[in-house]
Amino acid sequence: MTDLDPAIAARLKRSADGLVPAVVQQHDTGEVLMLGWMDDQALHMTLTTGRATYWSRSRNEYWVKGETSGHQQWVKSVALDCDKDTILLQVDQVGAACHTGDRTCFDADVLLSVDTPGGEHRA
Amino acid sequence: MTDLDPAIAARLKRSADGLVPAVVQQHDTGEVLMLGWMDDQALHMTLTTGRATYWSRSRNEYWVKGETSGHQQWVKSVALDCDKDTILLQVDQVGAACHTGDRTCFDADVLLSVDTPGGEHRA
Repeated sequence: MTDLDPAIAARLKRSADGLVPAVVQQHDTGEVLMLGWMDDQALHMTLTTGRATYWSRSRNEYWVKGETSGHQQWVKSVALDCDKDTILLQVDQVGAACHTGDRTCFDADVLLSVDTPGGEHRA
Repeated sequence: MTDLDPAIAARLKRSADGLVPAVVQQHDTGEVLMLGWMDDQALHMTLTTGRATYWSRSRNEYWVKGETSGHQQWVKSVALDCDKDTILLQVDQVGAACHTGDRTCFDADVLLSVDTPGGEHRA
């Protein structure tokens, strides 16, 4: 049972466990903060409450980001990709996105970094 | 059978189908371009060839991005997240990332966009 807009639910493509990956990005700096998982109801809550809400696969419950840590994610935009099987969520992240205290979940384990001294930057 | 560095393979956490989601970001502008899926060998190829390589779930084969379209992704950095179950790939994207011709796969279906006129921007 879900409250998600039927027009959105009709085009959403879910994995076998009924979830869709959500890429979470800081809206102004462009940092990729984390990847979460949403079912229809978590997407509905995210769209209607202004607070990023996920399905926790480890705890098997809804997870309103920042509810216990205080590190809320205020929703700025939500988009589906061309295949309707991935969500891009742009947020304003309060404090650290990662439970380790790092700003993003991708800060600690860099496998490869190609140096481009003097390289062209289009930003 | 895979050629992936055993130290990386040992910490990688895969879904039931042996895949890990890879968030793909333009390295300089920060745009989130797409989400792809990698198995161990695709990650190995991405790390060693400098070309982003995925496992195509629809075609059931390795997919060297841009091989047919010419829209290559040149790898700039590769990182694992804190849970070791998501990859962040920063690339230099040639042309459009999306098969529709859009720059990113998230351009066409925006579900919500919160206007913040005069809002603070930290970028």
